[in-house]
Amino acid sequence: MAVMFRRMVIAGVGLIGGSLALAARKRGLVEEVIGYGRGEKNLRVALKKGMINSYFLRSHEIPFETDLLVLGTPVRSTVPLMEEFMGSLHPGCVVSDVGSVKAEIVRDMEKLLPDTLPFVGAHPIAGGEQWGAAPARADLFIGQRCILTPTRHTDRAALKKLKSFWRKVGAKVEIMDPQLHDRILGVVSHLPHVLVYALVNLLSRTKVDRVDLKEYCGGGFKDFTRIASSRPELWRDICLLNREAVSGSLADYIKSLERMNRLIRKGQGALLEREFASANETRRQMT
Amino acid sequence: MAVMFRRMVIAGVGLIGGSLALAARKRGLVEEVIGYGRGEKNLRVALKKGMINSYFLRSHEIPFETDLLVLGTPVRSTVPLMEEFMGSLHPGCVVSDVGSVKAEIVRDMEKLLPDTLPFVGAHPIAGGEQWGAAPARADLFIGQRCILTPTRHTDRAALKKLKSFWRKVGAKVEIMDPQLHDRILGVVSHLPHVLVYALVNLLSRTKVDRVDLKEYCGGGFKDFTRIASSRPELWRDICLLNREAVSGSLADYIKSLERMNRLIRKGQGALLEREFASANETRRQMT
Repeated sequence: MAVMFRRMVIAGVGLIGGSLALAARKRGLVEEVIGYGRGEKNLRVALKKGMINSYFLRSHEIPFETDLLVLGTPVRSTVPLMEEFMGSLHPGCVVSDVGSVKAEIVRDMEKLLPDTLPFVGAHPIAGGEQWGAAPARADLFIGQRCILTPTRHTDRAALKKLKSFWRKVGAKVEIMDPQLHDRILGVVSHLPHVLVYALVNLLSRTKVDRVDLKEYCGGGFKDFTRIASSRPELWRDICLLNREAVSGSLADYIKSLERMNRLIRKGQGALLEREFASANETRRQMT
Repeated sequence: MAVMFRRMVIAGVGLIGGSLALAARKRGLVEEVIGYGRGEKNLRVALKKGMINSYFLRSHEIPFETDLLVLGTPVRSTVPLMEEFMGSLHPGCVVSDVGSVKAEIVRDMEKLLPDTLPFVGAHPIAGGEQWGAAPARADLFIGQRCILTPTRHTDRAALKKLKSFWRKVGAKVEIMDPQLHDRILGVVSHLPHVLVYALVNLLSRTKVDRVDLKEYCGGGFKDFTRIASSRPELWRDICLLNREAVSGSLADYIKSLERMNRLIRKGQGALLEREFASANETRRQMT
């Protein structure tokens, strides 16, 4: 494939950033990938595993000739870090991110950046509870959705180029309004994390005759709570940045649990079964 | 190994009953296994797969010389079915079950059965969302917990024999009070099912600009909601039979979600992170 960018900087070489670096290099989409991060140990792993050609540790050291900057840091650092990089970038450098929350980031990036640094918000729906460069892999995005969230201010040429870039690393690209993205992900991703963190805490705090409840958790419970292994500070930031959607769907969920609890307490078997059967059918459609 | 029972009847040859039949035959613990159930098709599968030697379809046809009767039917059928079998059983036949709820079943079985038909409640913690004889396998119980729930009325010889029987099919046997069993399983197993059924329903009922939210569920969500594939009518019965424990832990859970939601709405990042980090640590101890 033809080279699309000469010099890509990945700021935050984690599972997503590292996998994007590997995939782009493998497919010859970039000439050079340069890593940035605070932890040198992680950058050395990325270097050793062939994700990056080199790295820098201070934001002002970003190479001037960078033509693609991908911000792969936790969502609350995206905008502040961009402020640090801004003054050192060549006009025309395309800026993007991979954050799980879009509306606030897109709004703030558009406020911050001049027209000469076109920004396109992106969220590849891939990854999981692992983090750091070590688990990154070139095929992470194959067949996975990558949502791009342009607005009416977005540079069309940059959008087109990023669309093509993500397609070439294997993703199914979808264009979506940033607010809509946040409302959808609030329900299907952010809310479940809150629910699981709360359940695991309930489990560890509930005392039943001094029994350690963890011992009685079967494989089902472990599958169910795997996402509680995700990094706490990342999910704190995601919940706070997407506060309105997460909080709204959490309130809806609490209401539906209250209804379930009334059915259980009153022994309303037929209605309870109807609820369970409806979920069962929906879940069947998901496999 | 030595034969422990000459004729074992499994009433309800599902994943658990079928696997117990396979394991007991494989290890030579029983001379003959006879299946009972309402669905002849399922019994034919069990016969073909070597789980049972024969089957019967009407409860009064239970062989008189049965010396172990294991009730593997849904929890609400256990006691009514026992009433049907009772008159046809030979004195000395050991009766047991494999139900996920114990207190009410143990109490009713002890009321129902004469001293000549000793009952020992059992709950092997194995299986999952599959059902029917087809997925049964001889190694299902290896290394898994099987909780026996005797009371002060339980026949000690029958208890000893069942303990040994479950050990020989590979289970780690544990003795527990039936009420304590129900309180523990209410939190670690029954509650999560309710939560997941409710979440999947929220997902299918939430309308975000006419988008089908199912399309946006990643692998994490699918792991998380796998238990919603479990049979609705089974879980309805489990929730109703263990009403007090399920309802109590659901109420506690709702309270903790309300607290989480306050933290999110007020943007209390430090407290929110503390909650998430605590769950993260507990989950880490479970892998």
